[in-house]
Amino acid sequence: MTMHSDISPADNDTICAISTPPGVGGIAVARVSGPRAIEITDTLWHGKPLAKAASHTAHLGTITAPDGQELDQCVATVFRTPRSFTGEEVVELAVHGSRFVQRELLNLLIGAGARLAEPGEFTRRAFIAGRMDLAEAEAVADVIASNSRASHRIAMSQMRGNYSRKLNSLRERLIDLSALLELELDFSEEDVEFASRAHLADLAGEIHREVVKLHRSFAAGSAIKDGIPVAIVGHTNAGKSSLLNALVGDDRAIVSDIHGTTRDTIEETLELGDYMFRFIDTAGLRDTADEIERKGIERSHLTMTKARIVILVVSATETPDAQLITDTVKKITESDTPPRLIVAINKTDVAEKESVAQWHRIIEREWPLCGKKDSEQSQAELTMVDISAKTEEGLDTLRQKLTDTAKAENGVADEGLLVTNARHAEALAAAAQSSARILESLDAGLSGDLVALDLHDTIDHLSTITSTITSTTVLSAIFSRFCIGK
Amino acid sequence: MTMHSDISPADNDTICAISTPPGVGGIAVARVSGPRAIEITDTLWHGKPLAKAASHTAHLGTITAPDGQELDQCVATVFRTPRSFTGEEVVELAVHGSRFVQRELLNLLIGAGARLAEPGEFTRRAFIAGRMDLAEAEAVADVIASNSRASHRIAMSQMRGNYSRKLNSLRERLIDLSALLELELDFSEEDVEFASRAHLADLAGEIHREVVKLHRSFAAGSAIKDGIPVAIVGHTNAGKSSLLNALVGDDRAIVSDIHGTTRDTIEETLELGDYMFRFIDTAGLRDTADEIERKGIERSHLTMTKARIVILVVSATETPDAQLITDTVKKITESDTPPRLIVAINKTDVAEKESVAQWHRIIEREWPLCGKKDSEQSQAELTMVDISAKTEEGLDTLRQKLTDTAKAENGVADEGLLVTNARHAEALAAAAQSSARILESLDAGLSGDLVALDLHDTIDHLSTITSTITSTTVLSAIFSRFCIGK
Repeated sequence: MTMHSDISPADNDTICAISTPPGVGGIAVARVSGPRAIEITDTLWHGKPLAKAASHTAHLGTITAPDGQELDQCVATVFRTPRSFTGEEVVELAVHGSRFVQRELLNLLIGAGARLAEPGEFTRRAFIAGRMDLAEAEAVADVIASNSRASHRIAMSQMRGNYSRKLNSLRERLIDLSALLELELDFSEEDVEFASRAHLADLAGEIHREVVKLHRSFAAGSAIKDGIPVAIVGHTNAGKSSLLNALVGDDRAIVSDIHGTTRDTIEETLELGDYMFRFIDTAGLRDTADEIERKGIERSHLTMTKARIVILVVSATETPDAQLITDTVKKITESDTPPRLIVAINKTDVAEKESVAQWHRIIEREWPLCGKKDSEQSQAELTMVDISAKTEEGLDTLRQKLTDTAKAENGVADEGLLVTNARHAEALAAAAQSSARILESLDAGLSGDLVALDLHDTIDHLSTITSTITSTTVLSAIFSRFCIGK
Repeated sequence: MTMHSDISPADNDTICAISTPPGVGGIAVARVSGPRAIEITDTLWHGKPLAKAASHTAHLGTITAPDGQELDQCVATVFRTPRSFTGEEVVELAVHGSRFVQRELLNLLIGAGARLAEPGEFTRRAFIAGRMDLAEAEAVADVIASNSRASHRIAMSQMRGNYSRKLNSLRERLIDLSALLELELDFSEEDVEFASRAHLADLAGEIHREVVKLHRSFAAGSAIKDGIPVAIVGHTNAGKSSLLNALVGDDRAIVSDIHGTTRDTIEETLELGDYMFRFIDTAGLRDTADEIERKGIERSHLTMTKARIVILVVSATETPDAQLITDTVKKITESDTPPRLIVAINKTDVAEKESVAQWHRIIEREWPLCGKKDSEQSQAELTMVDISAKTEEGLDTLRQKLTDTAKAENGVADEGLLVTNARHAEALAAAAQSSARILESLDAGLSGDLVALDLHDTIDHLSTITSTITSTTVLSAIFSRFCIGK
């Protein structure tokens, strides 16, 4: 790990912050880190001097203000450099979690010479000290923000360096490629070709495909991280809002028998199995003269193409509508990364059995047709569920289909190689472009030095993900996303 | 400290909870306490076995689910019995403060054999183990809830046992008194009077006065703990709502030039100096035919007598109203514990100087008169402040007067002998009654065994405050006020 040349002097002072969640609780923990962490704490400490404490030992004492007023009983845990999270001298102070004690403890520490930490400054110091690379440091914030098993697993894997190792291996292969090209350049006057152009193109093509694959995984990765967007679409009065309510379990969406009740898209998050889903209820799909409602429908179409899963709700009490199926599949396949479709045949509690069966037949007939017409991507497995949003029959099956579909989306997640960070996705997009240019240049038989330019560009783009040389501005932007105290 | 006979078997199992505030943060700490705390944690622990760890040592490792999936990196701190908060084996697990990690960590601990702790169960165990008495244990919850320097100081003092020592000394003096009485009883047939009745009455009177004083301190104590109630009263349009807004600093109360805008009492809390104040804006004091407004005014009168401080706002642009001053003082002195009065002469930015001076003269004239007429308690220092709620002139002086007044209220707070707990106030009220009966009986020359009954009642009432024998039901009620994890 390279040390950073643009460390500001502020990086050498001693910082403090409450590291536990804001609010009131049994205990709160303040973290103090920096060369004077122990010395500063000792000025407030009544108990065995922490200066004499060994690393990784906890001590009972009291925090006492300079005026002699006792603030609180406290357990101080000492972590000696370099065996701490930041690599610096660290003291963690566990006190009672009252608002007053937390605030006053920080005041006392600041009065004694510490500075209030900026968001993410502890992790930033860990990164600066070379204890983790930039992608690993960013994953710390993702671990803290993760709200489902799947998003947690990806963030953990990234924090433990699996993703960085993948990127570093790509980078190393690019450097090897570069070495081969330079050999060619060095001996170009002698007209010796050390590596055949075909061989170089093979290597470059392989790397390019992996970069593209990583970049494409951002759609699934960010969906898992932020919640998988599920669009609920269908004719007005098919029961979309009732379905959302039944799934989420409260009366968030206004349900009404009047056609066209839902005009705004409504979002609800729901954890099912290992995943967090964001349900988006949308305006009904029907021709309307109402201006506001028409806008809602337009937005509904947009939502559909941005969703990862689309639930088309149809009412079994209505005549099966082949056109609706065709239109929906067509709309879905317009997207670059088409969402998966689940057709929910609703109102099975009141509909005739024959009517439900008719819907099944129509869907089975139309699905492959529209699939073939449009693109191979729509050739997904046919998913149909009979439900009653009212009696909740079939909802468990629908929930299962949702988690199965999410799992299918999340193919490589177990290896932690899904891209979840927009900054990384941007770098990978740039790397995909420059690596495509390598292939083009090799193809066009351009000279090695021109190819080398794109090669170095690709290496640079990949390097920005794990650092190693990063400007203070970029670092500040990255760590400002963190909470204070981490 | 007596051990408790009514320990339920559940008190011997191992409990766990998140002890840090609920929500997302850099780190969260789970506490595990009980005979199997270390054994249970070790089943999830990858790192140096905690079973071999010395007390007060911290260890870096990972929490891993039985299926091998790594949950998080973790710093585990081991506290060996009896050197822990609960006196039991304790492990504190510091993990990343994500919702998922916190929830899953508890799931894993429960899966491994721990039980989710009830609110306050850790402190309850500390009490059961004799590490603190009941009043000290209750003060732990008060330390956590305290929101100002003053309330924190009282709670800290109680947690450190100052209050318990005072109660125990009262109890010991009662026991001495009881011994003297028993001597009298044992030798009653011989007609020997070992302690003169006059001496006994002196001792009992002294104790009674101290019990009454402690009980009376609950008014000030609970005001400091919950926020000192300040009623803002005055004629309509005198600028009460504007003053509240200026003090609190936002537009919480609706201000309007129409007379009688404020009908509901509005509460705002504000920390000034060492104290938390609860400002209560009230309906204007004027004759009105409006039914709803009249109810508001009635409530305003009630609020005034319940407040610890009354700010009477008068408009310097209006003719001085001697009756208003007299009425307000009269109203205030109706209370058992009369609040202190501050007269704020408002609108000094637009009023004639002479008009302000006139108000001063009228107030100075009426104040001692109405004071003398009613009771000695209204003979408080005259507090007048010229203000402009609009330009904020004089507001700093008003703020200073508020904190000075609070300080004067809080006479003995530094010694931590203010009663802040309703349960204690109830016990003290009962003790005051039975100690009054001791005096009456001694006075009436009743026999020693009758006096002894009231004496033992008094001892029992005081004993309930610090325990030592307390029913499970009472304990459950006390500790249910706690947060989980403490």
